[in-house]
Amino acid sequence: MVADERTRKLVAASSEVVLANHVEPTADMRAERARASFDSEELAAYLNGGRHKLQRKAELVKMLSDSEWGNKSRRYFLTRQEEYTGALQGILGIWDLVQDKQISLDDALLMRQLFNLPGGLELHIGMFIPSILSQASEEQQAKWLPLAQNLRIIGTYAQTELGHGTFVRGLETTATYDVEREEFVVHSPTLSSTKWWPGGLGKTATHVILMARLFVDSKDYGPHAFIVQIRTLDTHRPLPGIKVGDIGPKAGYNAVDNGYLSFDHVRIPREAMLMRFAKVSREGKYSPPPAANSKASYATMVYVRATIVEEAGWVLAKAATIAIRYNAVRRQTTARAGQKELQVLDYQNTAAELLPLLAASYALIFMGKSAMGMYKQFEADRDRGEFSSLPELHAVLSGLKALSTWITSDGIEACRRGCGGHGYSLLSGLPTLFASYVQNATWEGDNNVMCLQTARYLLKNLLAVQSGKPAAGSAAYLQSAQQEMQSRCSLESAEGWLQAEPLLAAFRHRATRLCIVAVQALQAEGGGKLAFEGPAWNACTVDMIRLARAHSLLVLYSNFADSVKQLASQGAVSAACVAALRKLVALYGLTSLLRELGDFLEDGYMSGSQASQARQQQYALLRGLRPDAVALVDSFGFEDYLLNSALGRKDGDVYRDLLQRAEVSPLNASEEGPAWEGILKTRLAGPHARL
Amino acid sequence: MVADERTRKLVAASSEVVLANHVEPTADMRAERARASFDSEELAAYLNGGRHKLQRKAELVKMLSDSEWGNKSRRYFLTRQEEYTGALQGILGIWDLVQDKQISLDDALLMRQLFNLPGGLELHIGMFIPSILSQASEEQQAKWLPLAQNLRIIGTYAQTELGHGTFVRGLETTATYDVEREEFVVHSPTLSSTKWWPGGLGKTATHVILMARLFVDSKDYGPHAFIVQIRTLDTHRPLPGIKVGDIGPKAGYNAVDNGYLSFDHVRIPREAMLMRFAKVSREGKYSPPPAANSKASYATMVYVRATIVEEAGWVLAKAATIAIRYNAVRRQTTARAGQKELQVLDYQNTAAELLPLLAASYALIFMGKSAMGMYKQFEADRDRGEFSSLPELHAVLSGLKALSTWITSDGIEACRRGCGGHGYSLLSGLPTLFASYVQNATWEGDNNVMCLQTARYLLKNLLAVQSGKPAAGSAAYLQSAQQEMQSRCSLESAEGWLQAEPLLAAFRHRATRLCIVAVQALQAEGGGKLAFEGPAWNACTVDMIRLARAHSLLVLYSNFADSVKQLASQGAVSAACVAALRKLVALYGLTSLLRELGDFLEDGYMSGSQASQARQQQYALLRGLRPDAVALVDSFGFEDYLLNSALGRKDGDVYRDLLQRAEVSPLNASEEGPAWEGILKTRLAGPHARL
Repeated sequence: MVADERTRKLVAASSEVVLANHVEPTADMRAERARASFDSEELAAYLNGGRHKLQRKAELVKMLSDSEWGNKSRRYFLTRQEEYTGALQGILGIWDLVQDKQISLDDALLMRQLFNLPGGLELHIGMFIPSILSQASEEQQAKWLPLAQNLRIIGTYAQTELGHGTFVRGLETTATYDVEREEFVVHSPTLSSTKWWPGGLGKTATHVILMARLFVDSKDYGPHAFIVQIRTLDTHRPLPGIKVGDIGPKAGYNAVDNGYLSFDHVRIPREAMLMRFAKVSREGKYSPPPAANSKASYATMVYVRATIVEEAGWVLAKAATIAIRYNAVRRQTTARAGQKELQVLDYQNTAAELLPLLAASYALIFMGKSAMGMYKQFEADRDRGEFSSLPELHAVLSGLKALSTWITSDGIEACRRGCGGHGYSLLSGLPTLFASYVQNATWEGDNNVMCLQTARYLLKNLLAVQSGKPAAGSAAYLQSAQQEMQSRCSLESAEGWLQAEPLLAAFRHRATRLCIVAVQALQAEGGGKLAFEGPAWNACTVDMIRLARAHSLLVLYSNFADSVKQLASQGAVSAACVAALRKLVALYGLTSLLRELGDFLEDGYMSGSQASQARQQQYALLRGLRPDAVALVDSFGFEDYLLNSALGRKDGDVYRDLLQRAEVSPLNASEEGPAWEGILKTRLAGPHARL
Repeated sequence: MVADERTRKLVAASSEVVLANHVEPTADMRAERARASFDSEELAAYLNGGRHKLQRKAELVKMLSDSEWGNKSRRYFLTRQEEYTGALQGILGIWDLVQDKQISLDDALLMRQLFNLPGGLELHIGMFIPSILSQASEEQQAKWLPLAQNLRIIGTYAQTELGHGTFVRGLETTATYDVEREEFVVHSPTLSSTKWWPGGLGKTATHVILMARLFVDSKDYGPHAFIVQIRTLDTHRPLPGIKVGDIGPKAGYNAVDNGYLSFDHVRIPREAMLMRFAKVSREGKYSPPPAANSKASYATMVYVRATIVEEAGWVLAKAATIAIRYNAVRRQTTARAGQKELQVLDYQNTAAELLPLLAASYALIFMGKSAMGMYKQFEADRDRGEFSSLPELHAVLSGLKALSTWITSDGIEACRRGCGGHGYSLLSGLPTLFASYVQNATWEGDNNVMCLQTARYLLKNLLAVQSGKPAAGSAAYLQSAQQEMQSRCSLESAEGWLQAEPLLAAFRHRATRLCIVAVQALQAEGGGKLAFEGPAWNACTVDMIRLARAHSLLVLYSNFADSVKQLASQGAVSAACVAALRKLVALYGLTSLLRELGDFLEDGYMSGSQASQARQQQYALLRGLRPDAVALVDSFGFEDYLLNSALGRKDGDVYRDLLQRAEVSPLNASEEGPAWEGILKTRLAGPHARL
């Protein structure tokens, strides 16, 4: 619509008043980068494994954006069916690039992360093939591996049932050996024994590794693994006796066809049992697995938890990047007319919400690096037949799995709320990030159960100490539990809280005290006796979980402080980077301490005035870190393609992006919208265009 | 598939072993109801306004389920377009029932709650018509009301812009008066001035109440309201100069077409300005609104906040109902083989997570009743020209809006996680409940901004007291701030914490102390001066928000305790009900205290041993409330139709429900799934059905 000259002039006078205080978000973003105290590209190169990795990532992003299947422009508009097929096309696209030797296997891993839409092949790659490798006999491997690796079959791993997740021994699916026909009969005796949740099971997989209770001669040998074909290879329809399908929509992760599966007296050959360790002979003789095997399968669980810890920091970092970039260009409210509005990140409460989450991202990323390092050390030991570090590794990673996924789940949502109304739009990227992440708190070991495992380990270590034996590994601090109970925080100034040691001491003290409290509670519930399962234990789980969280925080914080110290002593990054990271270490420690301040005051370890000095120092750190906020998220090195967020754009041009994405959303396919014909027209339509 | 007799016998022996420890969830649910200490139907009748209301609700549910538009069986499978059109069909269905006199207006309200899918008419009903009623002149009302009330036009309320939410004075859309043509020219001078978020704006509304900055003779008079037609009435297409559409998908609430809208020099008649209060004459003379008007529009905001507080408890109650029912029939883990597994609600940590949320639901429901009562009292005063209670009402409801929506948002997610893996399925109802609720924390006044309003009020009251004037209303306790700082908790036993008074005293003490701390902080930042906005204020917002939360919790808890006390003294429900409610009051208070224990220890108000007694009492209450857990959620009186949750079924038959809902989900429309043809077939298909 072209207005006449007079109208334009009239309106221009009003516009001028409005524009006087208007700031373009891209200008704000440039100013933010100009004020940083260190070089974010240097830190990004370090965190990402070198400048060449960042470079390669950019090239892969280009390949992805240019491909039909890698383009993300419709990602937030897909129906469930489109998500499912789109994810398969994506992973097959990457698969083909590897086959055609256009990219390396390392590139493929990076590409999967960038593409960022897990689909129906996740468990084929992540569980089916690895299970065959670890649990199948040589003959079985020779038969199944080529089929799986060449995608002639697609598999998944079917353990969880409608009624059983955590407690594997309680599974109800049965596999009964029929010695006459040398076959197993697989059966689902109850509704609740229906397999439920396996990824790729719904509509993709042709085969499963099935966990079922083995019965031979009416004797229950507990859960064992079988390989079972569930769909025909020529029509992809379920085989007779098998009911299989998708479990329906979820909060997120909907490109994956999590499935259900039940069996009505389905016969499979004896050779379908994975027989690298446990065996059933033709004659029906059962041979149990050697003891080392249970340790090996234990190791797989531990590995999965290490990967979850590793991922947590990077996921929270994405949320922090989006929220901090947006709040750096978002302006709201001025006290006086005629002044520019304030950047929202300059409000103390916004900084107090977002900067600790930035610090937590770094803490978790460094923890992930160490967790993977610990796991690799264990692998090297294991290959020499040495399993002694497994209990410690298991205890540390169980608690860290819980703590890190809680921090990240809650942190993403805090970032989303920190973006005000726009955080509620899918186009911000935050709701999808949250919805596709939060299952981490309940899968691969429910977080509460994880904490109980860690608590059990700590209690046993404390009891060992009390009976004169040494405490081990991450629990070593319990060695001096008795003396620790007498120790008190000795800081006398706010500046003291800038150092890691007083914070570490406080976290150590708390964990020690809570361990002693937990033992006392368990003893009281058990009438003086100590049992690590059963009624008394179940009545003390609140104290146990508190303890495990406190211990895990100590591990996390101590690793963060150590990692930055090492970085500095190795000269891996410049002094300016180290200085910024040191502030993050202090902020993370102080925020964690102040959030659970009662724990440190309850037994008099800290005084009220020490608490108030800690708070002063926390506020000072928020001010000190503010100029580096954007540079610190730039340092994660995320591509716009990966974040796929209108609010998290590197250039800050958030409002244009929101509008452009909205304009092409499906509801806007027609001007009059999908409700005009058939619903609104009969009621609204009048003879005239205007009233 | 029919197995032969021998196979069936073989397998039956295995099944017998499995079934020995199997418990049907429906049996668990019956047992739960049998052990309750009070009559849940009695309490349900009280909470729902009488047995006749429950009866009527059941009848309306029947009407809804039987209607085509009210059936919810596909609710979790809808595309965005289907959600949008489905919600419109629903509200129009209810509308028609009222027109046909099949149901009353009260019934229609109930039906909307039961149908539970807000859509494109929400703001027509909730903002457009009320705005005309409150802000249009008599002539304007005569013109617009019949059109709106007969659905000849559909309206919405367009205030928020891409770049402006909270700060209304910063809006950038302009309406410039053209005295020559006696028209306004409406214009969007920047991208960020695009209207963004109004519900129903995207594809439904034909008209908007537009908030735009009024310019007359180049002078800026700030935001004013105009009624503007945006779409033609014969084709539903946008009028010239108008760009309008849907803002794209959100975390939830997707049946509502939240929209964007921008203007390119659009002319509207002078009469389009709503002129009940402010006016622009033909000659371009501006008359400001009388002072009372700003109070009236203030009152609308306050009303909206009261409704949000009222809703919060009922929403959290839904989540608590689902999680508690499911965890009462969910069994997991036994310490010894051959024993039944434990109901998950019997683990202390599960009870410690869910029962306080149950208590919070009750606390919020009673608060909602009182908040509405306070608002109605104000209305009665207002109609007598008496506005003096408005500042108090505004301050109380702002803080409560924030606290209650935080509690409910976080509480739903905690309930979801408390359901383990199945909580992640949409079929549980919990993800949708969360996603469609959490915008409450950021809309209608961002929670942090709400807290700042309350804090400002409290600080002013404290300053009044310090200068010898009285503190008012909910801030009356600040009257004795000086003495309060010396007071200490005097309890000497765990049982003492069963009473409300020690908890109230603790909450009062904390709020008082934090108010004094906040004044000191503000003074320090302002170099001795006290300014309630500007740089010093912005640098103290963390302390201000802490204060507002502490104050609001005091109001919430005090109202909960008082309401139950009144219930008892009035004999409104039986003693057995009251006894259960009293335990909830104590549990809620103790949980709130222990969660922020540091606040009570920091200045020595409580001692460590008092804290540990409080914790003992909390644990005892969890045990004491456990037998009544299911009865206490039954008392909310939710219909299965409303909850629409496989896990929250009243009869406990959760696994059958999950499976049945999954089977009909769209991905299961064909046996081979949507990826077979075109994606998987070319790679997988072999000549044989089996390997």
